[in-house]
Amino acid sequence: MKTNMLIAQSGGPTMVINQSLVGAALTARTSKAIGTVLGAKHGIQGILDRDFINLSKISQSQLKTVAQTPSSALGSVRRKPTTDDCNAIFEVLAEQNVGYFFYIGGNDSAETVHIIHEAARKAKSPLRCFHIPKTIDNDLRENDHTPGFASAARFVACAFIGDDLDSRALGGVKINIVMGRHAGFLTAASALARQEPDDGPHLIYLPERPFSIESFTTDVQATYQKYGRCVIAVSEGIADASGEAIAARFSKEVDSHGNQQLSGTGSLGDFLANEIKARTNIGRVRADTFGYLQRSFPGIASKIDQQEAYRAGEAAVKAAVNGLTSGSIAIRRQKSEPYTVSFEPVALRKVARETRHMPASFINKAGNNITKAFIRYAAPLVGPLPKTAHLL
Amino acid sequence: MKTNMLIAQSGGPTMVINQSLVGAALTARTSKAIGTVLGAKHGIQGILDRDFINLSKISQSQLKTVAQTPSSALGSVRRKPTTDDCNAIFEVLAEQNVGYFFYIGGNDSAETVHIIHEAARKAKSPLRCFHIPKTIDNDLRENDHTPGFASAARFVACAFIGDDLDSRALGGVKINIVMGRHAGFLTAASALARQEPDDGPHLIYLPERPFSIESFTTDVQATYQKYGRCVIAVSEGIADASGEAIAARFSKEVDSHGNQQLSGTGSLGDFLANEIKARTNIGRVRADTFGYLQRSFPGIASKIDQQEAYRAGEAAVKAAVNGLTSGSIAIRRQKSEPYTVSFEPVALRKVARETRHMPASFINKAGNNITKAFIRYAAPLVGPLPKTAHLL
Repeated sequence: MKTNMLIAQSGGPTMVINQSLVGAALTARTSKAIGTVLGAKHGIQGILDRDFINLSKISQSQLKTVAQTPSSALGSVRRKPTTDDCNAIFEVLAEQNVGYFFYIGGNDSAETVHIIHEAARKAKSPLRCFHIPKTIDNDLRENDHTPGFASAARFVACAFIGDDLDSRALGGVKINIVMGRHAGFLTAASALARQEPDDGPHLIYLPERPFSIESFTTDVQATYQKYGRCVIAVSEGIADASGEAIAARFSKEVDSHGNQQLSGTGSLGDFLANEIKARTNIGRVRADTFGYLQRSFPGIASKIDQQEAYRAGEAAVKAAVNGLTSGSIAIRRQKSEPYTVSFEPVALRKVARETRHMPASFINKAGNNITKAFIRYAAPLVGPLPKTAHLL
Repeated sequence: MKTNMLIAQSGGPTMVINQSLVGAALTARTSKAIGTVLGAKHGIQGILDRDFINLSKISQSQLKTVAQTPSSALGSVRRKPTTDDCNAIFEVLAEQNVGYFFYIGGNDSAETVHIIHEAARKAKSPLRCFHIPKTIDNDLRENDHTPGFASAARFVACAFIGDDLDSRALGGVKINIVMGRHAGFLTAASALARQEPDDGPHLIYLPERPFSIESFTTDVQATYQKYGRCVIAVSEGIADASGEAIAARFSKEVDSHGNQQLSGTGSLGDFLANEIKARTNIGRVRADTFGYLQRSFPGIASKIDQQEAYRAGEAAVKAAVNGLTSGSIAIRRQKSEPYTVSFEPVALRKVARETRHMPASFINKAGNNITKAFIRYAAPLVGPLPKTAHLL
């Protein structure tokens, strides 16, 4: 007997999270085990509010345009369900005859799926619960990389290509703040912008290494003396030796998962620029914070990322229909060349809660740059970048 | 007898300023009147320092890649020449046997060319001096629009398409700060992002209308009540009723043209976000400042902008070779359909110093949005934008 499917999106949007949504929905529509495909608006909030969209009724061509569209087409939410929420969610799922639940998101969302699945087991419900990975931070354990990362990385790399050329024209110090709370992968992707030996970013600061304003100033001055300019990639998540995020000094907002709000403000960049102005004689010091454009800019997604996000959604539905009761879909890179990946179900608890960090082999000794190993890792994901030429 | 040509770039880089450089250089290379084509590094600074690149020796294919590359390939400068500078420039130009001088830039650069040409006339020098228009601000008089504007406008429109989708997913208030010191054209271009009636930006604030934090708060609250979210485009140049730029409260830097530094910081956006947080009960309020990416992002230039920038460089060289002693090239739109333009030499003093503003017909009565007349004006310049679809 057929049961219905419910799918929702959570956390920060990405350029390809709708590929996973459409991959799952279109795969489900061909399955004999699945009846109606429902989408809940704004994640678990839409389940609690019984606020659904019938995805079975939306044309394939419309869904294909949705897949190409950045951000979360069903809407998103940042809410950690309580035990009461979970009980309420079961009632709704039972009432809607839902046998398959899919939640697209990061490690917080995997944790949410895990909580719901544990509650389902206790209630002896046959509900199948799957997490589909998504995060521009690329910080999910078990995964070689996560859908959303490569497209954001592509934006960051393109932004640094342009910004380095801009800096080459006018000189001075340029600080760019890149998203990434605990993991530096996206900030590190700025290095893909380098085409010639003196191209920026010249310095890269990651959450994985303690940040010191004194070392930072020394690094910037040395680079400026060498090149007459210094282009810098700084993760929004950089933290001091005690582990406290520098940006947290300027932020008072905390979400229900306990995450402090770091994005949506230029204060970290302005702080660093002011420190360099105060501590050096360099005349032109500017800071930009790339902000939400990194995850939402249309028309710039990585092709590989689009394909993999679609396939992750497809793989989750196949795993559920083929009999697994719960799991997350992990992307594993094959060791053989050319670049290929597989999509493998793993236990939810292996992905939930904790985050993955940049491996030490990706970071230089001084902790102010990345290694060639990172470039070899990231370049195939991001794909070919615009070719440029300069005269200086 | 042949004389040499010297060309340089000034002011803020754009995505197509190198098209004008290459258009002028390649046109000059086919002229019987022009000998060597020299590029001065970093504008008039490179002339004063005799720091040149021989553009006659660079291959056509290399120059064509340079033309596609954002930012100013010769380097740029923000420096207003003194009378002493002008005298020194003449000495260098005479010494290099330069008969043709071209300077690509905005109204400040037109002023620079004008000063140099006046000094040339007084010295009875036959030097021909031309200004080639360039500014993302689109604020040059005599021009329907300026090279660089349409590509920056394309970036801004794409950014708002993505950011509006992002805001649709998570709700709240989102403030985006767009470049434009005195003219609101680039901020207005955010409106090109709208594809459906409830698409953002919902509010647009321009330097041409006095900004009041009270009206702003009222507008934001009304929009938020209507849509559950509010996406706002704010020009970095918004000013209070006395004409003082709001951003100037947070900036102490002034360049040699007397312009206060407004970009390269997130402080205006953060100020407005904090005001909305303090004055309303809206939970999620975020601000991004698009910053230098607006003028330098590779691979996103408007095709029409690229072509017109090239043709503006070409037209300047042709005008000079055909006998005009000085001028600026103005872009004029033909009234007939489809969209076509002509390139017409005008007197330098008509373009120098003063800036052009948004005509009143482009701004709504309340001063918090643009009109359809602006869309009709800007849409052909920016070209087709990415198609999106959403489910909410």
